[in-house]
Amino acid sequence: MASDIDIARAASMKPITEIGARLDIPEEALLPYGRTKAKISADFLKNLNGRRDGKLILVTAINPTPAGEGKTTTTVGLGDGLNRIGRNAMICLREPSLGPCFGMKGGAAGGGYAQVVPMEDINLHFTGDFHAITSAHNLLAALIENHIYWGNELSIDQRRVTWRRVVDMNDRALRSVVCSLGGVANGFPRESGFDITVASEIMAILCLATDLEDLQQRLGNIIVAYCRDRSAVTARDLEADGAMTVLLKEALQPNLVQTLENNPAFIHGGPFANIAHGCNSVTATATALKLADFVVTEAGFGADLGAEKFFDIKCRKAGLHPDAAVIVATVRALKMNGGVGKDSLGSENVKAVTKGCANLGRHIENVKQFGVPAVVAINHFTADTEAEIQAVKDYCAELGVEAILATHWADGSAGTEALATRVAELAESGIAQFAPLYDDTMPLFEKIETIARRIYRANEVLADKSVRDQLRRWEADGFGHLPVCMAKTQYSFSTDPQLRGAPIGHSVPVREVRLAAGAGFIVAVCGDIMTMPGLPRVPAANHIGLDDKGQIEGLF
Amino acid sequence: MASDIDIARAASMKPITEIGARLDIPEEALLPYGRTKAKISADFLKNLNGRRDGKLILVTAINPTPAGEGKTTTTVGLGDGLNRIGRNAMICLREPSLGPCFGMKGGAAGGGYAQVVPMEDINLHFTGDFHAITSAHNLLAALIENHIYWGNELSIDQRRVTWRRVVDMNDRALRSVVCSLGGVANGFPRESGFDITVASEIMAILCLATDLEDLQQRLGNIIVAYCRDRSAVTARDLEADGAMTVLLKEALQPNLVQTLENNPAFIHGGPFANIAHGCNSVTATATALKLADFVVTEAGFGADLGAEKFFDIKCRKAGLHPDAAVIVATVRALKMNGGVGKDSLGSENVKAVTKGCANLGRHIENVKQFGVPAVVAINHFTADTEAEIQAVKDYCAELGVEAILATHWADGSAGTEALATRVAELAESGIAQFAPLYDDTMPLFEKIETIARRIYRANEVLADKSVRDQLRRWEADGFGHLPVCMAKTQYSFSTDPQLRGAPIGHSVPVREVRLAAGAGFIVAVCGDIMTMPGLPRVPAANHIGLDDKGQIEGLF
Repeated sequence: MASDIDIARAASMKPITEIGARLDIPEEALLPYGRTKAKISADFLKNLNGRRDGKLILVTAINPTPAGEGKTTTTVGLGDGLNRIGRNAMICLREPSLGPCFGMKGGAAGGGYAQVVPMEDINLHFTGDFHAITSAHNLLAALIENHIYWGNELSIDQRRVTWRRVVDMNDRALRSVVCSLGGVANGFPRESGFDITVASEIMAILCLATDLEDLQQRLGNIIVAYCRDRSAVTARDLEADGAMTVLLKEALQPNLVQTLENNPAFIHGGPFANIAHGCNSVTATATALKLADFVVTEAGFGADLGAEKFFDIKCRKAGLHPDAAVIVATVRALKMNGGVGKDSLGSENVKAVTKGCANLGRHIENVKQFGVPAVVAINHFTADTEAEIQAVKDYCAELGVEAILATHWADGSAGTEALATRVAELAESGIAQFAPLYDDTMPLFEKIETIARRIYRANEVLADKSVRDQLRRWEADGFGHLPVCMAKTQYSFSTDPQLRGAPIGHSVPVREVRLAAGAGFIVAVCGDIMTMPGLPRVPAANHIGLDDKGQIEGLF
Repeated sequence: MASDIDIARAASMKPITEIGARLDIPEEALLPYGRTKAKISADFLKNLNGRRDGKLILVTAINPTPAGEGKTTTTVGLGDGLNRIGRNAMICLREPSLGPCFGMKGGAAGGGYAQVVPMEDINLHFTGDFHAITSAHNLLAALIENHIYWGNELSIDQRRVTWRRVVDMNDRALRSVVCSLGGVANGFPRESGFDITVASEIMAILCLATDLEDLQQRLGNIIVAYCRDRSAVTARDLEADGAMTVLLKEALQPNLVQTLENNPAFIHGGPFANIAHGCNSVTATATALKLADFVVTEAGFGADLGAEKFFDIKCRKAGLHPDAAVIVATVRALKMNGGVGKDSLGSENVKAVTKGCANLGRHIENVKQFGVPAVVAINHFTADTEAEIQAVKDYCAELGVEAILATHWADGSAGTEALATRVAELAESGIAQFAPLYDDTMPLFEKIETIARRIYRANEVLADKSVRDQLRRWEADGFGHLPVCMAKTQYSFSTDPQLRGAPIGHSVPVREVRLAAGAGFIVAVCGDIMTMPGLPRVPAANHIGLDDKGQIEGLF
């Protein structure tokens, strides 16, 4: 089969005005970026409030393995499938980060015949949203330094500046730096560092904000430092929230593009799925629900992290009510969950598939806990055997859930007709009775325990007194109502990335807790969480370039 | 009078397709960014080669003072004036840097009734060109670190990594940092730092490149480090040039906007005017010359830096032939050059004006040395008296140059009719006989001496043996043909910023020389050159925000 970039380039894209027209978006409400990308104007968004919402469908997955699951690809394929069977559907995806494109993984706009286009633009600068976030983030950093430099009127404790800087690049050398060296004119030397832009709290804020006013409110709430008496200093205290809002004014508007089959797609926002909630923006999802009868969206990592945060953070905060969930699995990944190594994935192994299904089963049970009906999509790989596929179907049938083979990667929407039909049926049935896992009023530590016990099936949560004290202090300071954002490995239900399948009885150690007062959640850090990736020995950048026709090569 | 932002907001902008149509640019050659900004497609640019060039007019100025000169405003006013008298004219300006908007100076899109619009967009993210430059610059930095991290096959001397990082923000804390702290996983600690994006060599490269191929060639030539044997390591050695070109693919295309009077303007590229050449891009100027009969452009700082570099670097390298120059002066700034303090500018002082005219006179003589006919524009301020204005006119008349009052700030094009008429006459007369100041073949140190003697009227150039040796080494390495880019204070012909007027007999100390092998010039650093500004005690950011109608306030 042709490469992703070749398929994408051969796509016959329609003018974005035509895609907008299908959603009844008037031309003046589309702010074009070239001919095939557009932002939806804020004015138009305001006037949608009265409309009825479409059905919301979450695409989530088993725990990721090096074998690949294909969540984005399935989201695109399902959206195209729903349109194929006559439903008015659109998809909502996260924007890819620029940095990783030059490292290992290449782009993130689907694959095969289930892609969003223009793929090169989406993977590179796109409409500049991430650049705007980088600017707003680093403006705040500069204003903090500047405040201290000119006399530190707010009495910021320079050892307790928590706001770092960001860059949308994989650059390990920036993880830990000492800045303000070089003498009086450059300020007071201190330790700091850089994260990748997707890890910025501003990214999470942009994705949870409902409008510009809410955005500015949240930006103002960001805690950037503490004083010696431990009182918090916010972005508002530094008078930074206005200028930051101005920098993010355009970025808050959702980006409209299309799939290879010319169906509409919003690609907007892309927060980390560990230290943040890992879903596309609330503005995109909420807008899509007003414009289409079906909205298919995805959440980062496996369902233990992605779906849980989608339900407990995004849906809770934005008042969204998901109608169905699709759990993506591949035979290959189930085999790995069943104990097979990456090198042995090529040969049939029904037993390993069945064993690995325990991981899938756990995710099915978990999604049901939120009151959302689920279906399993078996994302087809060419080496899968019929017996292996049947094993997955049989396993799911026992749990009362249908598992449907989907071949969108090779066949586009023709490969998701059955899946789309079942999803539409589930969503339209009205059986969903969505509720988050815990109440706002539950104490913070109990929220962590609830997720650990009910989703991860752990026996206990371990945390030092300092962590528990910190949570109590935040409760006293009025942050007790916030949801919890778990930052743990995506490879296992436990905190041990090697522990595949469906472990039980483990302990979840909470090493550290962080308050994202602007985004509106408490991050519980369980294990090493990397917020600035590095580049591999031979980075993808070495092979990215323009061919003799001026077309981009090496981006995949 | 209304504020700049109020005037800009009240502007009745035409769709950018209409502005393009006036230049016979077909709609498919315009890549829209919203409704009032567009890039010109690279394909369209290629097909312009056969056309005849219009007349090229440089707007330059006396040495800047805190009183303000209004070079950009005059460029806009003159462009509108030429259109008003029936000429098909367009203007070419530099893009403003985002960082300084949040510091002291506010935006840079003209002022009063001589502005380019949409002013807020132009001053903020615009079409993302500077973000693309930041990304390309920092990708190269990450690839250098990564190369060393994984074994340093090229044997880069870690003490001699010359490539820093950039951010488009005024952040003094980043001027000097130690990076790669924190242990094995983060690399080898070393000193480095950040410059503001406009100081990036990539900015200069983007502004001198003629097409994508030339761009990649120049990017590959960038010297990023040296080995222990002093051999140079380039971006090409790191296989970075392809990916950097991909990041800059869109950024190379000129940005079309309009003036308040709906005349076309390219705003593209904005290199520093000290360590770089300070002019908008070659692609913009060269394209404009194919599209319009008159092209008005500006160069940074006063004519001693800006015009000299425009002629000796940009015009030389791009094969441009300027037809006329406008030297902008204000009565206020001439008074300051005549010894008056900023607080006493309000009262009439003909004597000081006449005394300060020595500065203007020197610039007039200098421009003539390049074979370009000049006219003086007296950019009117309301407090100027008739006697003061007459003094300037008289002074210029003695030098055989016309000085014309221009009131575009208050009156728009109605205020530049006389100026435009004279400029058109000069440009159409064909009397220009442009030639750069020195030959490519002249030894590098002699090039520096030639500029210092003939433009600055210095007696001598002082430089340590190490500087002279370095220049000789570069000559031996094949860089002797490059032009020289002088980095000195913009406030004086000398290297002493306090020395206003027209000093003679001074010495020009060259502290350091740098090779910009990608941009294609040698930088001679004379004095302290700041490549990362700081923010003032009360930064403009504190007052920038959205008003209750969602419009930006505080940007000026």
